[in-house]
Amino acid sequence: MRWRIAARPTGRELRADDYTRDDSPLMVRLADGELHVRVLMLSCDPAQKGWMENAGGYAAPTEIGDVMPAGGIGQVIESTAAGFAPGDLVQGSLGWANDLVVKAAGMRLVEPEPDAARLNLGLLGSSGLTAYFGLTRIGVPQAGDTLVITGAAGAVGSIVGQIGKIAGCRVIGIAGGESKCRWLTEELGFDHAIDYKAEKVKHRVRELAPGGIDVLWDNVGGDMLDDLMARIAHRARVVICGGIARYQQRGRPPGPGNYFNIVFKSARMEGFLLSDFARDHDLGRDRLRRWLAEGRIVQRDEVVDGLDKAPETLMRLFCGDNVGKLLINVAEPA
Amino acid sequence: MRWRIAARPTGRELRADDYTRDDSPLMVRLADGELHVRVLMLSCDPAQKGWMENAGGYAAPTEIGDVMPAGGIGQVIESTAAGFAPGDLVQGSLGWANDLVVKAAGMRLVEPEPDAARLNLGLLGSSGLTAYFGLTRIGVPQAGDTLVITGAAGAVGSIVGQIGKIAGCRVIGIAGGESKCRWLTEELGFDHAIDYKAEKVKHRVRELAPGGIDVLWDNVGGDMLDDLMARIAHRARVVICGGIARYQQRGRPPGPGNYFNIVFKSARMEGFLLSDFARDHDLGRDRLRRWLAEGRIVQRDEVVDGLDKAPETLMRLFCGDNVGKLLINVAEPA
Repeated sequence: MRWRIAARPTGRELRADDYTRDDSPLMVRLADGELHVRVLMLSCDPAQKGWMENAGGYAAPTEIGDVMPAGGIGQVIESTAAGFAPGDLVQGSLGWANDLVVKAAGMRLVEPEPDAARLNLGLLGSSGLTAYFGLTRIGVPQAGDTLVITGAAGAVGSIVGQIGKIAGCRVIGIAGGESKCRWLTEELGFDHAIDYKAEKVKHRVRELAPGGIDVLWDNVGGDMLDDLMARIAHRARVVICGGIARYQQRGRPPGPGNYFNIVFKSARMEGFLLSDFARDHDLGRDRLRRWLAEGRIVQRDEVVDGLDKAPETLMRLFCGDNVGKLLINVAEPA
Repeated sequence: MRWRIAARPTGRELRADDYTRDDSPLMVRLADGELHVRVLMLSCDPAQKGWMENAGGYAAPTEIGDVMPAGGIGQVIESTAAGFAPGDLVQGSLGWANDLVVKAAGMRLVEPEPDAARLNLGLLGSSGLTAYFGLTRIGVPQAGDTLVITGAAGAVGSIVGQIGKIAGCRVIGIAGGESKCRWLTEELGFDHAIDYKAEKVKHRVRELAPGGIDVLWDNVGGDMLDDLMARIAHRARVVICGGIARYQQRGRPPGPGNYFNIVFKSARMEGFLLSDFARDHDLGRDRLRRWLAEGRIVQRDEVVDGLDKAPETLMRLFCGDNVGKLLINVAEPA
């Protein structure tokens, strides 16, 4: 079984009927350097909506009718590629399918270990690496800095805040709902959490960060980013990671009217792609694994069972009801 | 005579009656470390409108009734400060006045030479140094880069483009009107100029910079910045220097909706203040003076005679009718 893209969700929310289910069997004939892979677990990422829209042109373009792309972990069934054997675990760009054929060149071998799929798709996967490289290389936190994170209870934000604590920052997370906020302060060690559904973010940030925001990590965009841009400190670094607000709005939402504050504050707003740091991904995974082993970083995920639930599961990312990393379990390793 | 601030032009255009004329004589009694200075020449800068509004909080706050602040060159009449003698030329924050009392600590001695005032307020003053440090330290141009400049015929933009040529860039200037555009290409050596009053900037930039914009220098903001943000190249540097568009609009104009392109392009948008580079200002002046002597940089200015014309002269900056640096001549050196 596999899910194919049926419609592009450009300028609107995702819908269940943006995909069509294809139950026909997969005919496999491998060319040289290819793998037939059984999908084990899939990652849910906001970028997937952008891939469906071909937004930004930074990923391989999709066509209507393509299998819905997704990062994931699979197990090799058959291989015509040197270095890959049946039974091996691989990570890379897979899709919403029980099995598929991929080029081995884009795949990374994963060490078999307990919970290998969850670990490699979460903390050691794109979420953890995005947090690690975005914060250390773009945000450049200094001990004593005030770090503010929007979408703080998400897969990336929750790791950004924990790395911020390791770097000696005062960490303030913004999230929706009391239970997420409690999780941030009580379990992840954030200094403060602001519940944007119950509190005025602008006023609370002024109270909690009277000296301004040194590093701003933004997953949200929209009005929240604008309000926070008004509170940046001298030489602030604003890391633009995501824009959940803009994924949901119809048409193109306005940009941050307060962008000009970067002049008054000699500040910088910067974006990045995880692939910019491809050469150092192993280094990032090593650091994150060590912090996990030392108990300095906690990973939280929610695993939804069944490829049939993929469309509704991805939609949950955009309504903000999940905490930590959202994963889809497709099959157990053989 | 002096002009005092009578009203704050927040969210609207400057008006002649934002100032009141004060013809009472100045009573001078110097405290220690002060100078009584005769004003010779004054600089016109967009930032002066921001000073009147106390926008951004980056300059000393102004009060209604204060003498209108302006960068300028003066000649010392009387001094209680070591190192400053009557007859010396000084540069610093002066004001719209025939003479005034200033603290010597904020003043810089200027070498007497022909045209010392014009040279030090133009190419070697805030405009030239802003161009030099903003481009070399924030824009970081590389040989072969495409550099696009908005407000290219202004005091800062015209120097940015010439430094860009020295750095080996392809330089495209955007300005209003055919004569400004001809000046950029025929006299300053810009590769191309786009007349935004006659041409579609978005389409022309696509034609002239098919590989995208590597360095974007923005003096304008508004829709023009937004259109250009859509055309940035991978790893682009967007230098936010000014926002003439936002000085004119009522209320707060929207930010660049295309800001999110910095994620797709791993790009950066950064602001700065000239004071960030205070330690290196002498180095900047040396470089600019050498390029001027070698004929690699041309300075153009327009000198308006008479302090009585200060209010109307400053207003001209914001309607885009001046070319190069706009100066007000108050008196000849004694």
